[in-house]
Amino acid sequence: MTQTYPGTKPVTMESIDLTGGFWYEKQKLVRAVTMKNVYKRFAETGRFEAFRFSWREGMPNRPHIFWDSDVAKWMEAAAYYCRKQRDTELEAIVDEVVEEIEKNRMEDGYFNSYFGLLEPENRFTRRGDHELYCFGHLLEAAIAYRDATGKDKFFRLMKDYADLIYRVFYVEKSAAFTSPGHEEIELALVKLYRVTREKKYLDLALYFVEERGREPGASQIQDHLPVREQKTAEGHAVRACYFYCAVADLALETGDETLLSTAKTLFDNIVRRRMYVTGAIGQTCVGETFMGDWDLPNQSAYAETCANLSLALFARRMSVLDPDSVYADTAERVLYNSFLSGMSLDGKSFFYSNMQEYNRTVSRRPYSDRHRIFTPAPTRVEVFGCSCCPPNVVRTVASIADFQYTADENTVWMHQYFTSEAHIGDRTLTVETGYPYDGGVKITYLGGAGRLALRIPGWCRDYTVTQNGKVITPEVQRGYAYISVTGGNEIVFRMEMPVRFVEANPRVWDDAGRIAVTRGPLVFCMEQIDQPDLCLRDIRLSESADYRLIMDETLGVPVLCTDACVRHWENDILYADSAALEMCRVRLIPYFAFANRGESDMVIWALKL
Amino acid sequence: MTQTYPGTKPVTMESIDLTGGFWYEKQKLVRAVTMKNVYKRFAETGRFEAFRFSWREGMPNRPHIFWDSDVAKWMEAAAYYCRKQRDTELEAIVDEVVEEIEKNRMEDGYFNSYFGLLEPENRFTRRGDHELYCFGHLLEAAIAYRDATGKDKFFRLMKDYADLIYRVFYVEKSAAFTSPGHEEIELALVKLYRVTREKKYLDLALYFVEERGREPGASQIQDHLPVREQKTAEGHAVRACYFYCAVADLALETGDETLLSTAKTLFDNIVRRRMYVTGAIGQTCVGETFMGDWDLPNQSAYAETCANLSLALFARRMSVLDPDSVYADTAERVLYNSFLSGMSLDGKSFFYSNMQEYNRTVSRRPYSDRHRIFTPAPTRVEVFGCSCCPPNVVRTVASIADFQYTADENTVWMHQYFTSEAHIGDRTLTVETGYPYDGGVKITYLGGAGRLALRIPGWCRDYTVTQNGKVITPEVQRGYAYISVTGGNEIVFRMEMPVRFVEANPRVWDDAGRIAVTRGPLVFCMEQIDQPDLCLRDIRLSESADYRLIMDETLGVPVLCTDACVRHWENDILYADSAALEMCRVRLIPYFAFANRGESDMVIWALKL
Repeated sequence: MTQTYPGTKPVTMESIDLTGGFWYEKQKLVRAVTMKNVYKRFAETGRFEAFRFSWREGMPNRPHIFWDSDVAKWMEAAAYYCRKQRDTELEAIVDEVVEEIEKNRMEDGYFNSYFGLLEPENRFTRRGDHELYCFGHLLEAAIAYRDATGKDKFFRLMKDYADLIYRVFYVEKSAAFTSPGHEEIELALVKLYRVTREKKYLDLALYFVEERGREPGASQIQDHLPVREQKTAEGHAVRACYFYCAVADLALETGDETLLSTAKTLFDNIVRRRMYVTGAIGQTCVGETFMGDWDLPNQSAYAETCANLSLALFARRMSVLDPDSVYADTAERVLYNSFLSGMSLDGKSFFYSNMQEYNRTVSRRPYSDRHRIFTPAPTRVEVFGCSCCPPNVVRTVASIADFQYTADENTVWMHQYFTSEAHIGDRTLTVETGYPYDGGVKITYLGGAGRLALRIPGWCRDYTVTQNGKVITPEVQRGYAYISVTGGNEIVFRMEMPVRFVEANPRVWDDAGRIAVTRGPLVFCMEQIDQPDLCLRDIRLSESADYRLIMDETLGVPVLCTDACVRHWENDILYADSAALEMCRVRLIPYFAFANRGESDMVIWALKL
Repeated sequence: MTQTYPGTKPVTMESIDLTGGFWYEKQKLVRAVTMKNVYKRFAETGRFEAFRFSWREGMPNRPHIFWDSDVAKWMEAAAYYCRKQRDTELEAIVDEVVEEIEKNRMEDGYFNSYFGLLEPENRFTRRGDHELYCFGHLLEAAIAYRDATGKDKFFRLMKDYADLIYRVFYVEKSAAFTSPGHEEIELALVKLYRVTREKKYLDLALYFVEERGREPGASQIQDHLPVREQKTAEGHAVRACYFYCAVADLALETGDETLLSTAKTLFDNIVRRRMYVTGAIGQTCVGETFMGDWDLPNQSAYAETCANLSLALFARRMSVLDPDSVYADTAERVLYNSFLSGMSLDGKSFFYSNMQEYNRTVSRRPYSDRHRIFTPAPTRVEVFGCSCCPPNVVRTVASIADFQYTADENTVWMHQYFTSEAHIGDRTLTVETGYPYDGGVKITYLGGAGRLALRIPGWCRDYTVTQNGKVITPEVQRGYAYISVTGGNEIVFRMEMPVRFVEANPRVWDDAGRIAVTRGPLVFCMEQIDQPDLCLRDIRLSESADYRLIMDETLGVPVLCTDACVRHWENDILYADSAALEMCRVRLIPYFAFANRGESDMVIWALKL
């Protein structure tokens, strides 16, 4: 029976500064390179221009139904980057977009750069055409922008729009549909509720959530069952997890235990049955959906960047509701593996789909479209037709600190390990760590009496905790070590980070007989380019072998070098008796760093010696 | 450098009686059950009726372009069954078909139950519509029928038709195409040449073979390169191997070394790069074709029964040209595994595609047609829309003795081990064996001085040979043990038949880290139905464990029982540390016997302890 902590609140990034280390560097990279790159691509393709309502027949770059959401997510990221330090460059762009929204919105507050210009008469008639989805992202951006800059025009415009939607969908029920085709607005409305405390926005969010479930068979958009009857994660993975985020948010805001247990059931189904070891979800390209329990094929894994991220967002919300470390463990698993893999190390290009195994032979098969096995793109690209992932990446990196803490009056829970300084009420926490490469975390706590709860990661088998120099053995409850603190405390949490082999449940067909190499939160993989003369799938690793962690100069990340074995195979024959093994030297790289050196075969699941 | 033996001839089934054992029982089953069943299905679907030219618009069972070939192959099987003992039932059916051919053929000898009735004006205009393919099978049937019964009307009708085709395609070149869309006629024409010694039929066969290769890109029908430039097996697998059969036949009849080396090169490419361990070929459903070297996925393997058989037919022809045991090894591999799997143990139903692995989860995925991963039928069926496989099975079983011997004046090569009595020139060979379950072969040779060459199967590591009670150590050349014989000899050849593990080249992605269990020529597999509580893919076998061969009462075949291990997995979690192993008892069945007890997951490639 889960216990809700009604006093627990998320600690949002406004209270936290990353001051160094892994995510700080990522934030710098994204600000310096990715924000500009994504802006440039969006500008080239007409996404910003669309807000001007300037397109006419015959011109290139005809507006598209989801462009508003792409720009909105970029603007949300821009807002986050303006928070600590005002940024005239970014603000100029956002302010201009806001001007255009004000100029081109309908009188009653409706704004959509596609429908507003091209089909105003058809607004709110086509459920699947992303109007409410676009609004949701614009709303999230507007809230973030007001928080960051104090400028409130964007916010007022979106609040007007929210009021319109409330009137049309909740009061009059005059639209052609009753809930959106792509969930997103629900979680955005909860954000609006939280900053205004106007109950109508919470009511509207709950209404949208409870309106779903009237079309048996429509699991693609989670419409197959009423929300409280949904027990398994079905359908389009991004829609699903945005939906589950809202369910969790509403559970927290309303205290409705049935919504909480629904969220828990769905979360459990994902992480215990339908998630790749890298935290990736959405096993199939067909509809970009979940498949059934245990069905986790590696070669055809779809694993959309947005989907993986949405699992982390769902997990983060669950951490607020329920202090069980499985939630932050899951967020960590996603963030350091199949979320980060969505962006190239140089910050310029992206994966839509994050493959879990790559065999270029498969992609070279001469299939006609009719019989196409899904073959993922082998390398990242700088621009997509459907460009939801890049702006999702930048806004998440910019606001990564949202994942670090939750707190109530008495306790601060540290869910993630980021080098940072945070002010939580009257408490100040300074963290220094080499995570994810090093398991040492130095924490300085200043504040009144209370508790500090440190997540013991699920991968961590051995650790020590010292408090002001003395070794302590704090009580561990549901994966958190609870330390009593008061005044000034220096806490050193040292997690042993050996290389560990992970296996999958025997019911996972593809992974039987294989292991995944992990070190701390990182899943490792092997790329052909590092062992060009070896058969990747035949490499046998030993858990007790020596693994040297060395810096790879090309990739700029630490990689593992070790001794391994492969079969010694004579004469290129096809079938023969068991072959003897011979030694070889192999290199494993963090999964998030794969496909940064061109097309290369890749495996996560290796053989064990 | 291969050495041709121009004096070597195939020893055909007319010289051989199977007198007991494995294939004798199969022949009895096919005669008693399958011939009737296939006939019944063909009659129901209108295939026999079509010869009457009785169909009119509005009637059911409109004739189809390949029905003549289905009936022809059945008639060929009927002919083989009439050989040893006249069979009025079968002959009545064939004679009636022959009457209809005579009645309904065109004056110039053309016969086709589709074109003749429905599109006579379009004869020889559409390369892809199987006219010459149908004729080829009718010709094979006619030759076999005359041999078996002495009745020659069928033969004369087909000889007339061959003369027409010679005139149209070779002399006048007046057809709309110059070589068939589906090879078959070439090898049939060589058969006609052999029984008539009329050179024009050989010329025509050679012409058809050399006419191919004028459409770069048309590898689907082996038209991408001139025959002597083809180095890899490409395109539709059945077409390809029927084509390669003809190339081998022509190499033998013409002595053309370039054709021989082409045949060798193509054979090598198949068995060394593109063949499953069960002898199956044609890796993909897309176009029913070969894929590239080493690309042997198990779950999606197409492995059409006709394709697998056609590899055995090709191998048999190579045995005549070149006494290297790889050819008969390959024929054995196919016949006892992926050919035999094409028919159910009760003789009533068939597989078109012979899966190499079955995971029902894959077949349950909710894919739309557009994204369909090929999922094979989980159980055999009694009738197909495209019914090429069943009559191919019956004619092959009926004439299986064709595979047993080749001979020249001095030497008899025993390629396969069948309990039989054979008269080869002035030599009589009697064989008794429990093959494929037992490796003992007792041979009685009566005849003049010469040699008996026994194939040492590629799987056989230990054997003894005695001659008239004395142990001998015959010289082994290219896989054959050459024994000098004269007068009366009793030779006992005893092959040790332990369970042996086979591995695939490390370049075969799917099979890395796994083994195939074999015993003698049989490949074994595991079906879920035999170990319902175990995860099939997680079972770990030991080569040195005790394997009991026991008779399975349901299947009626011997199966292997052994101790194995699986992982002990706690709590149904998805990812965890390496799990300990626990013992279990497992049952392996011959691959050819799979899918005879309903739908069941199946694996060939297991883990090794």
